[in-house]
Amino acid sequence: MTATGNQRARQTRLLALRFDGEALIALDQTQLPWREQYLRLTSAEEIAEAIRRLAIRGAPLIGVAAAYGIALDPSPAACALLKAARPTAVNLAYAVDRVAAADDPLTEAMAIHREEEASSDAIAAHGADLLAGTATILTHCNTGALAAPGRGTALAVVEELALRGSLRLALITESRPLLQGARLTAYELTTLGIRFELLVDAAAPAVIASGAVDAVIVGCDRVATNGDVANKVGTYALALAARAAEIPFVVAGPTSTIDGQCPSGAQITIEQRDPSEVRSLAGQPVTVPDAPCRNPAFDVTPAALISGLVTERGVATPVGIESVSELISG
Amino acid sequence: MTATGNQRARQTRLLALRFDGEALIALDQTQLPWREQYLRLTSAEEIAEAIRRLAIRGAPLIGVAAAYGIALDPSPAACALLKAARPTAVNLAYAVDRVAAADDPLTEAMAIHREEEASSDAIAAHGADLLAGTATILTHCNTGALAAPGRGTALAVVEELALRGSLRLALITESRPLLQGARLTAYELTTLGIRFELLVDAAAPAVIASGAVDAVIVGCDRVATNGDVANKVGTYALALAARAAEIPFVVAGPTSTIDGQCPSGAQITIEQRDPSEVRSLAGQPVTVPDAPCRNPAFDVTPAALISGLVTERGVATPVGIESVSELISG
Repeated sequence: MTATGNQRARQTRLLALRFDGEALIALDQTQLPWREQYLRLTSAEEIAEAIRRLAIRGAPLIGVAAAYGIALDPSPAACALLKAARPTAVNLAYAVDRVAAADDPLTEAMAIHREEEASSDAIAAHGADLLAGTATILTHCNTGALAAPGRGTALAVVEELALRGSLRLALITESRPLLQGARLTAYELTTLGIRFELLVDAAAPAVIASGAVDAVIVGCDRVATNGDVANKVGTYALALAARAAEIPFVVAGPTSTIDGQCPSGAQITIEQRDPSEVRSLAGQPVTVPDAPCRNPAFDVTPAALISGLVTERGVATPVGIESVSELISG
Repeated sequence: MTATGNQRARQTRLLALRFDGEALIALDQTQLPWREQYLRLTSAEEIAEAIRRLAIRGAPLIGVAAAYGIALDPSPAACALLKAARPTAVNLAYAVDRVAAADDPLTEAMAIHREEEASSDAIAAHGADLLAGTATILTHCNTGALAAPGRGTALAVVEELALRGSLRLALITESRPLLQGARLTAYELTTLGIRFELLVDAAAPAVIASGAVDAVIVGCDRVATNGDVANKVGTYALALAARAAEIPFVVAGPTSTIDGQCPSGAQITIEQRDPSEVRSLAGQPVTVPDAPCRNPAFDVTPAALISGLVTERGVATPVGIESVSELISG
């Protein structure tokens, strides 16, 4: 029955990107859920621009996209350009360096792509084991098949819990400013036939406090070696609320998200994006013209607030230097 | 110098509502900051509808608006209609009952209006004393001259800190779904010439954690006798973040917001508003069609997370049954 369920889910899952030998074909995520429009990207510059404007997004997915970018152009200039496209996700730099150093860049990019797909299935299984029996889960931003090759990370765990039969409801946050939850997660869960309810970001901590949520699961953009996690802005508040409500707060991502050079969250560069993203919502102005805005794309959640870090190699719990070190060496 | 400052601020302050003897003239807050359009409301029904659709909003302001509604029509049907317009704010029921019981309803409504204006000045002074020297303050939703007669509540404290010369920056949250922060607070602070930066709601806890904020101040829609506070959804997350960062988390409001019949936050009715507020903005969809949404308008912050409750009668600190009881008997 699980196999049938998995198969059904796979049939309807979106293909966020593929490489056709000459170009990266990528679903333009800025157009979802209104238009399913594919971009044909034939240079590292075009791929970097698509990553920068979030047409391609999600830490694992931008790593794979950048890998193909270097396969198209392994020059130092292209490497620098792609690494600079988003400063927080470590997968990006990791994939760029690995493909640039390879004898056959395209083969290496395809290897990274396949590895991340396999990671996705393993994360789904480990996460669903950890959260076995969960009926109501809350997740943030978008971490499914649009954020990572294969099934995704945190949303892959949500899907697996649904396939295993325990999940009754996924609560999802809209994830301002760019609404990845409202636009993309709502779209993915609709496609997968998983029951959900959408919340504004500010409502999620209160809904957790009300006792309506069994567990919170999120993805990650960079994990420090002490287990501190940078993820979509808003994650930290969910972790505080989960701790206060004494429910699990779980982070899911491939080990490629762990930055072995980064000892703690204090060393993670937080990308500050353009104020215009805050000044408008779905194309409509929301405030006075030229309102000064502060627009951090990510925040840092300290390891002490995280119940478990789910990777393709298994789960670190409690989350700290020792358990993260085991995952890296594992 | 303070007097001059106050005078300057008053000259540019908006008049959210006034009664002209026959009708309530109210600024339509759903049209701000794009249009300054006044409504002329001549019946309790029209006033109830304006409150329901948030053309008139803010707990102290809707209390005064409802008072004039009863002055126009003191029938039991009008009382029931106005009380039901917003279920969370206790000022509404308080003002309706008081005016309905009065020999001269209009005189009583005007008395409530004047009392709330005076409360506003007293709250500003007490709050600025409590937070003397604050350079960067974070506030949520809209609690200024658009939310309360006179200068407002929490935003009146922000203004007073600016007038006294300590405030360098106000950080304000957009306050989804209806963007009272982005639309109204940004507009008021622009009018008052107070420097601000706008944040999406999800970014505020992270900005607090970064050490950039000296204090958080919010308004309140209902205060239980144990000091638990119902306020705009998102308040609870700010209180958690302020506690974790060890900075003051202050609630400001008139004593008319304290519900003597309500022993704790668990007994406060939280208004659930229409899913369409989450699904769209000004007719612009933000998610898949008919996405199921949960839309609580308020959340409850436990007294234990609140450093001080600022009222026109003074400050309760620590916040609890004894200090709140002293304010009520005040």
